[in-house]
Amino acid sequence: MQLEALLEQVKTGSLSVEEAARALKAAPFADLDYAKVDLHRQLRQGVSEVIYGAGKTPEQITGIVRALEANGQDRVLVTRLDQAKAGVLAETLPELRYDPMARVGLVGTLPEPTGLGPIVVATGGTSDMPVAEEAALTAEYLGNRVVRLYDVGVAGIHRLLAHTQEIYDASVIIAIAGMEGALASVIGGLADCPVIAVPTSVGYGASFQGLAALLSMLNACAAGISVVNIDNGFGAAFMASKINHMGPRPE
Amino acid sequence: MQLEALLEQVKTGSLSVEEAARALKAAPFADLDYAKVDLHRQLRQGVSEVIYGAGKTPEQITGIVRALEANGQDRVLVTRLDQAKAGVLAETLPELRYDPMARVGLVGTLPEPTGLGPIVVATGGTSDMPVAEEAALTAEYLGNRVVRLYDVGVAGIHRLLAHTQEIYDASVIIAIAGMEGALASVIGGLADCPVIAVPTSVGYGASFQGLAALLSMLNACAAGISVVNIDNGFGAAFMASKINHMGPRPE
Amino acid sequence: MQLEALLEQVKTGSLSVEEAARALKAAPFADLDYAKVDLHRQLRQGVSEVIYGAGKTPEQITGIVRALEANGQDRVLVTRLDQAKAGVLAETLPELRYDPMARVGLVGTLPEPTGLGPIVVATGGTSDMPVAEEAALTAEYLGNRVVRLYDVGVAGIHRLLAHTQEIYDASVIIAIAGMEGALASVIGGLADCPVIAVPTSVGYGASFQGLAALLSMLNACAAGISVVNIDNGFGAAFMASKINHMGPRPE
Amino acid sequence: MQLEALLEQVKTGSLSVEEAARALKAAPFADLDYAKVDLHRQLRQGVSEVIYGAGKTPEQITGIVRALEANGQDRVLVTRLDQAKAGVLAETLPELRYDPMARVGLVGTLPEPTGLGPIVVATGGTSDMPVAEEAALTAEYLGNRVVRLYDVGVAGIHRLLAHTQEIYDASVIIAIAGMEGALASVIGGLADCPVIAVPTSVGYGASFQGLAALLSMLNACAAGISVVNIDNGFGAAFMASKINHMGPRPE
Amino acid sequence: MQLEALLEQVKTGSLSVEEAARALKAAPFADLDYAKVDLHRQLRQGVSEVIYGAGKTPEQITGIVRALEANGQDRVLVTRLDQAKAGVLAETLPELRYDPMARVGLVGTLPEPTGLGPIVVATGGTSDMPVAEEAALTAEYLGNRVVRLYDVGVAGIHRLLAHTQEIYDASVIIAIAGMEGALASVIGGLADCPVIAVPTSVGYGASFQGLAALLSMLNACAAGISVVNIDNGFGAAFMASKINHMGPRPE
Amino acid sequence: MQLEALLEQVKTGSLSVEEAARALKAAPFADLDYAKVDLHRQLRQGVSEVIYGAGKTPEQITGIVRALEANGQDRVLVTRLDQAKAGVLAETLPELRYDPMARVGLVGTLPEPTGLGPIVVATGGTSDMPVAEEAALTAEYLGNRVVRLYDVGVAGIHRLLAHTQEIYDASVIIAIAGMEGALASVIGGLADCPVIAVPTSVGYGASFQGLAALLSMLNACAAGISVVNIDNGFGAAFMASKINHMGPRPE
Amino acid sequence: MQLEALLEQVKTGSLSVEEAARALKAAPFADLDYAKVDLHRQLRQGVSEVIYGAGKTPEQITGIVRALEANGQDRVLVTRLDQAKAGVLAETLPELRYDPMARVGLVGTLPEPTGLGPIVVATGGTSDMPVAEEAALTAEYLGNRVVRLYDVGVAGIHRLLAHTQEIYDASVIIAIAGMEGALASVIGGLADCPVIAVPTSVGYGASFQGLAALLSMLNACAAGISVVNIDNGFGAAFMASKINHMGPRPE
Amino acid sequence: MQLEALLEQVKTGSLSVEEAARALKAAPFADLDYAKVDLHRQLRQGVSEVIYGAGKTPEQITGIVRALEANGQDRVLVTRLDQAKAGVLAETLPELRYDPMARVGLVGTLPEPTGLGPIVVATGGTSDMPVAEEAALTAEYLGNRVVRLYDVGVAGIHRLLAHTQEIYDASVIIAIAGMEGALASVIGGLADCPVIAVPTSVGYGASFQGLAALLSMLNACAAGISVVNIDNGFGAAFMASKINHMGPRPE
Repeated sequence: MQLEALLEQVKTGSLSVEEAARALKAAPFADLDYAKVDLHRQLRQGVSEVIYGAGKTPEQITGIVRALEANGQDRVLVTRLDQAKAGVLAETLPELRYDPMARVGLVGTLPEPTGLGPIVVATGGTSDMPVAEEAALTAEYLGNRVVRLYDVGVAGIHRLLAHTQEIYDASVIIAIAGMEGALASVIGGLADCPVIAVPTSVGYGASFQGLAALLSMLNACAAGISVVNIDNGFGAAFMASKINHMGPRPE
Repeated sequence: MQLEALLEQVKTGSLSVEEAARALKAAPFADLDYAKVDLHRQLRQGVSEVIYGAGKTPEQITGIVRALEANGQDRVLVTRLDQAKAGVLAETLPELRYDPMARVGLVGTLPEPTGLGPIVVATGGTSDMPVAEEAALTAEYLGNRVVRLYDVGVAGIHRLLAHTQEIYDASVIIAIAGMEGALASVIGGLADCPVIAVPTSVGYGASFQGLAALLSMLNACAAGISVVNIDNGFGAAFMASKINHMGPRPE
Repeated sequence: MQLEALLEQVKTGSLSVEEAARALKAAPFADLDYAKVDLHRQLRQGVSEVIYGAGKTPEQITGIVRALEANGQDRVLVTRLDQAKAGVLAETLPELRYDPMARVGLVGTLPEPTGLGPIVVATGGTSDMPVAEEAALTAEYLGNRVVRLYDVGVAGIHRLLAHTQEIYDASVIIAIAGMEGALASVIGGLADCPVIAVPTSVGYGASFQGLAALLSMLNACAAGISVVNIDNGFGAAFMASKINHMGPRPE
Repeated sequence: MQLEALLEQVKTGSLSVEEAARALKAAPFADLDYAKVDLHRQLRQGVSEVIYGAGKTPEQITGIVRALEANGQDRVLVTRLDQAKAGVLAETLPELRYDPMARVGLVGTLPEPTGLGPIVVATGGTSDMPVAEEAALTAEYLGNRVVRLYDVGVAGIHRLLAHTQEIYDASVIIAIAGMEGALASVIGGLADCPVIAVPTSVGYGASFQGLAALLSMLNACAAGISVVNIDNGFGAAFMASKINHMGPRPE
Repeated sequence: MQLEALLEQVKTGSLSVEEAARALKAAPFADLDYAKVDLHRQLRQGVSEVIYGAGKTPEQITGIVRALEANGQDRVLVTRLDQAKAGVLAETLPELRYDPMARVGLVGTLPEPTGLGPIVVATGGTSDMPVAEEAALTAEYLGNRVVRLYDVGVAGIHRLLAHTQEIYDASVIIAIAGMEGALASVIGGLADCPVIAVPTSVGYGASFQGLAALLSMLNACAAGISVVNIDNGFGAAFMASKINHMGPRPE
Repeated sequence: MQLEALLEQVKTGSLSVEEAARALKAAPFADLDYAKVDLHRQLRQGVSEVIYGAGKTPEQITGIVRALEANGQDRVLVTRLDQAKAGVLAETLPELRYDPMARVGLVGTLPEPTGLGPIVVATGGTSDMPVAEEAALTAEYLGNRVVRLYDVGVAGIHRLLAHTQEIYDASVIIAIAGMEGALASVIGGLADCPVIAVPTSVGYGASFQGLAALLSMLNACAAGISVVNIDNGFGAAFMASKINHMGPRPE
Repeated sequence: MQLEALLEQVKTGSLSVEEAARALKAAPFADLDYAKVDLHRQLRQGVSEVIYGAGKTPEQITGIVRALEANGQDRVLVTRLDQAKAGVLAETLPELRYDPMARVGLVGTLPEPTGLGPIVVATGGTSDMPVAEEAALTAEYLGNRVVRLYDVGVAGIHRLLAHTQEIYDASVIIAIAGMEGALASVIGGLADCPVIAVPTSVGYGASFQGLAALLSMLNACAAGISVVNIDNGFGAAFMASKINHMGPRPE
Repeated sequence: MQLEALLEQVKTGSLSVEEAARALKAAPFADLDYAKVDLHRQLRQGVSEVIYGAGKTPEQITGIVRALEANGQDRVLVTRLDQAKAGVLAETLPELRYDPMARVGLVGTLPEPTGLGPIVVATGGTSDMPVAEEAALTAEYLGNRVVRLYDVGVAGIHRLLAHTQEIYDASVIIAIAGMEGALASVIGGLADCPVIAVPTSVGYGASFQGLAALLSMLNACAAGISVVNIDNGFGAAFMASKINHMGPRPE
């Protein structure tokens, strides 16, 4: 993989920084047969690889973690990791710490927050907390300070209005709600920062496993809102973290 | 139809008031071949018959109006009446006054309001006004005082909060919104009176002709909300008027 | 929270009743970290808080009940409480009485009925009884007299017609049905009081977990019907109770 | 095609009636290039070919009619024939009589009714009449006596109950309704004969062009009901006519 | 319930047969609190009540069976009865014989077939057999001779064509298929008797639990087909039996 | 673009054929600002570019045709070209010949057929002909012999069975049908060559603009069938032509 | 509205800047009866109000523009403005410049770009240009530099790969595509900046007016993508502009 | 079944090869009561029967395998065979070898590959492997060489581009992906051979059990792609194998 060779060339000046960066962004991955682990995502996308645990065996997860560690990544997050699989992993990955509500496992430690400001994670109800904690822990893993505002749904609008200061101060807001998903619209009308809306599958009957909240959020009248997949706390946090680390682009 | 005979019996005491009322609620209708006009709905349901104009020819509408008048009904409302059909009706029903925004026609005059309090008709946006006016005029036709709050959608929550007094004072609220339909949830959280939610087909893309708002309203977290069909301003007003005229039931 | 201070001011006349009422309706809630319990709903909405048990742990439910009790609420209803969770709650909330068919738990006693008249709870079939009992118990909890008419579906219309007297006498009717949901339409055509329709997920195949009944009820030809979410017996009863306690609004 | 030769063989006894019938049921058709006209459907299915007019040019319709006439069919029904196309056909098929409400054209005369009893065609509302007339005329064309019961929807159940005698006397009932389609369930509960349900696209909003009525009818609690496609008056009448002409099967 | 009194009147001539029949068709039912058992369906609909077992407790089923027996019904069919519940019923209803494939239980014996001819029950595949056996046993219970044609799906059209004689001889055909449901169309094109199509939930992926087959059957190009709910073998057999027992209607 | 230079290198041997082929497959296109015309698709995909006419202005179509001609392509097919646009194009592209049924325009002449055998294009009904002709003309344009079998739907299975020889002889079959789409299944069961199924939007009611046929075809029990988008005659022909030109791959 | 009074207080120091900012963010709007124009959105959300033209009359649009101008807003964008309405507006708003492809009208001039870097607007095909231009012009109106990459869909992946430099340099990317919407996933995998995906209603058949692209984009495997409503170019640009103007939050 | 007699006739010349082939293709099957095993599919379709294991009992599977063996088929593949059923089969079919990931069982040995070139089986992610292995093993069973490219989804497009050589060399490509299914489009744009797309049910939320990937693939912009049912690895391999064994058709 010659990472060192390439960097040596940069050092000696035979390769410019720009050329090296472009080369590194372009390619290699470790082929584990069952998975092609992306070793350069950190360079290309600015963040470490995160492992989506669902549909992978404990052996596969362990294998990918080890490959990432061998490549120099010092912390790894595993999402959508159910409790039973985490129990099995405890043998091969004893250093993995597991959060049962968020269903995420962490190897290594959380970094110091570095973004432009706090990311607010708000939920409509108590039942949305698993998605919210997946988002909050992912955001912290990616180097953000997180403010949690749980159970501030619009059925009691004063509970939300009591937190307008946090909303005004946020750098990015992740609005998480099931059922009718109105939280995103109301927050979108109050806030002047970008809002990432996450519909959840919380609800019953005509919520149709999150479809009602999804459609509601896609139709939010307030501008400055975009939406990720149902229950996708990770995706929302990843997007929010990118936004919270924005800076001037090189010319 | 022997209405007179029956009433004569009541007068002479050979039929009690309760028996007569029950008999009158039970049955007759005028068979116009293309329609069976319900001449006793006023007795049975407490309100005059309203004509649903869509899918009926001008001749049929005129025929039904005349049958109702012959039965003693002194005012008639025709809903879902498009402008072209209203133009044709001007010849056979010159006394019909037409409201192009609400697409309703009225024969006779509006009654004095008699309900328990005002019915608030609130909309999320300007584009919901045709449905709102159908609701407002129907409510007035059925004997209610109406307060209109238009364009108070949740994208600018302060526009709605500026009207909390009207919301607290309402007897019933009709919350009309397209797109994400969050208005119903927010009003439901503020109000302590019954709320009838009307999803509208206003919107585009993932609003799917009102489906998004419909699902959103059915899932409203706030209690005390029920929902009628998409764009059904008439149905909401009819329900609201029944509620606004509630009184003790006879033992 | 200074509730006493505020009431003292009312007593001394330094605060008018209207001002105090408005202040009390406006705001506070107990922040339990996982939930923001609404302590003033009884004032603002006229009814006690009801706990939605699904998605909450026994500890959370116990915590919320205790917070409500501390705030002076003397009875609490917990809905969507499955039998296993109720068993666990028996230790921390021994005074909670559990109804397995309705899946509700009650702390305290049911109040005396106070509404305008009886609320009729009608079902299409035997299988709709869990939803119906959730509705009936909620209505009783909120101070209504309930008349139960079960298994009166339209496949044998004479079973329903044998109960026309109860339908004529009702103050509000909750019509509960799965499969094709025609019960709501037929009752809507018979009754002159407001009808709240509840589609249930009873059925199979093209019932699509209640979608068929939901669409059917939303399209009910009879006026004076509105609809709540699939299986939402609680919501229907809450709405019906509000209607059954209607009275003149203050000027 | 040797129809005569075959029949000659039957006459002379060299071919049994059963063999001839089976041979005739098996095969031929006229290949008009754009259509393969089924010349033996009358034998195989017991009824004359009916032309589905939608998506066919006037020339194609004329060609098929002439091919059927050449084959000895003395009456032809053309369904789904819009008024403009019927106008054009007036030149090449002057003997075609057109019914604009039912959108069907007829060449030849209606036959004497021959079935087991009357077919009742019932509709929920006035707007369902085009579908109902397509069904009624098709049934008459196929040799049935038809009783029309229009506008007897369940919103005023007494309008339907006034006609229980016709329902008890029916051989087959075609129940046609849009919106919530409850008519089929109620008739199914009253009648003891087979009921064919036809959902119509009449309605708006959550009727979703007949989907609500379709699902409702498929879930009808009453037994003895089956369903055809939305607006398919022809298909219902064809099925009803087959049922109305049932007789013992040959051993 | 005075059934005897009524019949006595018939015997003495003080009540005509027609009047008695109409009276008996009109009304009574046994109110078991959890169910209103229809004791006169046999008279009104011409067939014995069948119990839909799903969603009923063993106690309720036993209660209804006993009520029907007390009313003189000598055989009872229980459909949608899963194996576990049948096991429990073995104690209170030891005479109930259970068919695990069809998931139906029978009290009493099957009657002699009496219809116009055989009912053919055809399936597309082996996996459709549970629905097919529910249909076949129901048809036999209702007095029909049944011919079973299983696994004759259109993927090997010659398997179906090898049975054209049974198809030509049938009085009614029940065509049962999952996946793409094409069997109904092909049989509809071959047969000259009524065809009842039953979509099944057999399949995976884009079969969407029977939706694909349902839509396919509703759109069947062949005339003379009508459709019942997904997996509704009972409903198809009930309809088929009515058709197979058609006879002239009284004047 | 240096095509000549590259080919010159091939000629002189300084570039091997394989290297040249790979280079040519890799890249260039003409940037017309509104479109990036793929000039090497003929090399990379083995066929000439086809222009999708819908959503392009006559000017854009003319521009793309001219760019392709300049690049040496001697025939161009334009699909989804409505009659009005074709009329406008007659001025700037006078050599374009237009087929109104197929809605395709052709510049240049059709090539000699070169495939492994005939492609059969079969339709269920007359109304499917526009899609079928789009498929047939595209297949001819791409160098295939086409056999048309129109109106052989399964409602009269003998019409299809009369053509088993053509089905056995086909190299590839394109099965086109709307409504219930059963044609694909039946042909799939008869044929031993690959079958491409094309659902069409022909139908009404529960066909839902082709959804019923699409689901039906995706669930076809017969193996050896794959499906393209609704009404996508072009895509089916493109796929069929690729299959019909299969040959050994280079080592 | 006392804006001056408030600012005067700031000037004299009797009101701190923070207090004034919060007051201004909180409330007022101009009540035009048909619309409540938000006069402080510029302060609260950081951008000028944009008028959604669909469903508003030319008079209403003119009224809102004049109200905004009176409030000091020096440029106004009107989106979803069809050509006919723009023609009528030319009389009352002669200074409005109209772009027929993007269907937007502009009063005033575009500002100098001020964001962190360029916003790339990429489309899958030529037909997506109306949505793309709505996005591009909105982004420019909100103070961003825009790079347009049109017709770079994944069917010819080399067309997209030829622009990797623009993708690496982008501050935010708006990926616009109809049909299968794969463009968002591919760009998301290449880019390290936030990607806003816009599904369009371009396509036919199983695209279901943009549903296919919408679902595809919501499921994009690549992280760092969020989605707005179908065809919502404005919403995407608004979100992108907020992201492109991110900076440190005040403590 | 007289296969030998028929072949004897061929040998002696009393039956031509063509006649014999046609006769053999036409008909017989073994009727196992629960299944009609197609003994001539090998002749008619060119491949051995494959048993779809889902919904069949171990006894039925064993019976069908033995019938096929008795008919001379020397290898049998059983698909959709879950692990528990395979365990039971180990007793009656000890020679069956089971692959738990692909959920297929094989009796006999895989044949030598004979097609035109390799079939590439590509997946978007690790979780798609069960479907991919079903496809790969089926293709090998049907006589094809298979190249596996797993986890080459478009979220890291360079992983796919690293394998362009295998894509250029493929005879047919099976592109398998869940979530947004973009892999098919991208491969379709790179390859010049036919591509069979298989949507999988891998994903969550708005993937709706594979619907998102299915719609995405049906709308793939690239030509030369067709689609099979969700998770249908077998069907894709069957189709691919047919294509990979194409050759000139007999005149």
